[in-house]
Amino acid sequence: MGSTSGFAPQGAGSKALQDPAQVRQMIRKGDWTAHTSGAAQAHVQGNVVILPEAFANDFLRYCQRNPKPCPLLAVSEPGQPLLPTLGRDIDIRTDVPRYRVWREGELVEQPTDITTLWRDDLVTFVIGCSFSFEQALLEAGLPLRHVAEGRNVAMYRSNIATEAAGPFSGPMVVSMRPLRAPDAIRAIQITSRFPAVHGAPVHIGDPSLIGIADLSKPDYGDAVAVLPDELPVFWACGVTPQAAIAQARPAFCITHAPGAMLITDLFNHQLASF
Amino acid sequence: MGSTSGFAPQGAGSKALQDPAQVRQMIRKGDWTAHTSGAAQAHVQGNVVILPEAFANDFLRYCQRNPKPCPLLAVSEPGQPLLPTLGRDIDIRTDVPRYRVWREGELVEQPTDITTLWRDDLVTFVIGCSFSFEQALLEAGLPLRHVAEGRNVAMYRSNIATEAAGPFSGPMVVSMRPLRAPDAIRAIQITSRFPAVHGAPVHIGDPSLIGIADLSKPDYGDAVAVLPDELPVFWACGVTPQAAIAQARPAFCITHAPGAMLITDLFNHQLASF
Repeated sequence: MGSTSGFAPQGAGSKALQDPAQVRQMIRKGDWTAHTSGAAQAHVQGNVVILPEAFANDFLRYCQRNPKPCPLLAVSEPGQPLLPTLGRDIDIRTDVPRYRVWREGELVEQPTDITTLWRDDLVTFVIGCSFSFEQALLEAGLPLRHVAEGRNVAMYRSNIATEAAGPFSGPMVVSMRPLRAPDAIRAIQITSRFPAVHGAPVHIGDPSLIGIADLSKPDYGDAVAVLPDELPVFWACGVTPQAAIAQARPAFCITHAPGAMLITDLFNHQLASF
Repeated sequence: MGSTSGFAPQGAGSKALQDPAQVRQMIRKGDWTAHTSGAAQAHVQGNVVILPEAFANDFLRYCQRNPKPCPLLAVSEPGQPLLPTLGRDIDIRTDVPRYRVWREGELVEQPTDITTLWRDDLVTFVIGCSFSFEQALLEAGLPLRHVAEGRNVAMYRSNIATEAAGPFSGPMVVSMRPLRAPDAIRAIQITSRFPAVHGAPVHIGDPSLIGIADLSKPDYGDAVAVLPDELPVFWACGVTPQAAIAQARPAFCITHAPGAMLITDLFNHQLASF
């Protein structure tokens, strides 16, 4: 999530921009360096975390213990840049529009290709993203204000602690979408079907009960209004693992740039549990 | 729902009182004339409405148009007192602990047997009851305050209009259970699996949005506290059809007395949709 400066071809509704392999080709060639919102909308997009094997086992346990914010879609073998369970010919070194490279917890560069940075000990984690369930909510006719207003979703650091594993710990980051009560109930039903992309909400109603003092001041993303007849509905957010990594300060780490996700061949509806 | 004066054998936890056929035998003999809460807990209990065929078609359409408050478990042939789809040897003339007989919308008697009132044109409707989903909520470890306090659930006439059919119309009656947000989300998931017993809630949060001015003054049942960290969660209620019948004032009608339900052989878990 978050906006990413860069170039995305115009006309995201066109047929080519809905085909995941074609979009990845544009990304690989360097013709697409911006966020992926709206691209290949029927397909699963993923948050990317790449860590040296020395950190990977702790991070894997962190994800296993915190499946709502960190639902794992794939974990690679060490040094293996391909992700065949997510799509044909996906190469994690070239197929993300923009990366963030971290050393000792500090952001050092934001390249569009990490081929020269690749190492034989790197393990790739792909974590589910709310784009998948938002697509299901929109198809069900539920209004999403941040989508209607062309904003990024509002995200907050809650006081819900994640389960620690090794150096990885920290608060759960949550995304918030305001909904009228009948739509909130329907949204709980729909997102419950998608445990691989954060699943059901973690909270509904009074933000102070999860340590959020002011909804108008999100920690990430953009604020949206909550109307008097709406409830704020909070989902676990894929920014949580990035916050845990920032806290753990591993010697080396690569992530996607916010909003510039890995586009997979999986269909969103393939993730539905029933 | 509602309390019913009458006699129920002591020791509802005993094996005999958990067997639906044995409980119905006691009811049939007149040894059980009270409410059925806690009896045959694994089994489906139903609201009962018995109407002359002249009203039955309109009432059937009313139920079809309002499946959340009026989920039909069975509809008999005219004049047929047996309900074989609900259980072996069920005779609707004798197997409800206490009945209410209505003429022109007025309650005229509350017998424990309606054999002498039976007519060849009577059609029986059995409508799902929240006892079934409450059992599922309790098994999931969710706290239900009215159960813990030994009270009847709080029920309110909402401003949600039902879809009219013939003379049947009126507001949806809702039951309210206070729950903390994570429990409310879990309760929405669980009750969504049980469309035959009212299904998911119809509202959550601010009561005034569905026309309820004061939660401490229920229209039926008993008030329970809603704590500061809880949300009121509202489900469609099986009292709705009784309110529609009271408004329609049919020449003749028989219902169960509140809380003294028909006990069927169906297991609650048989009603789960997934």
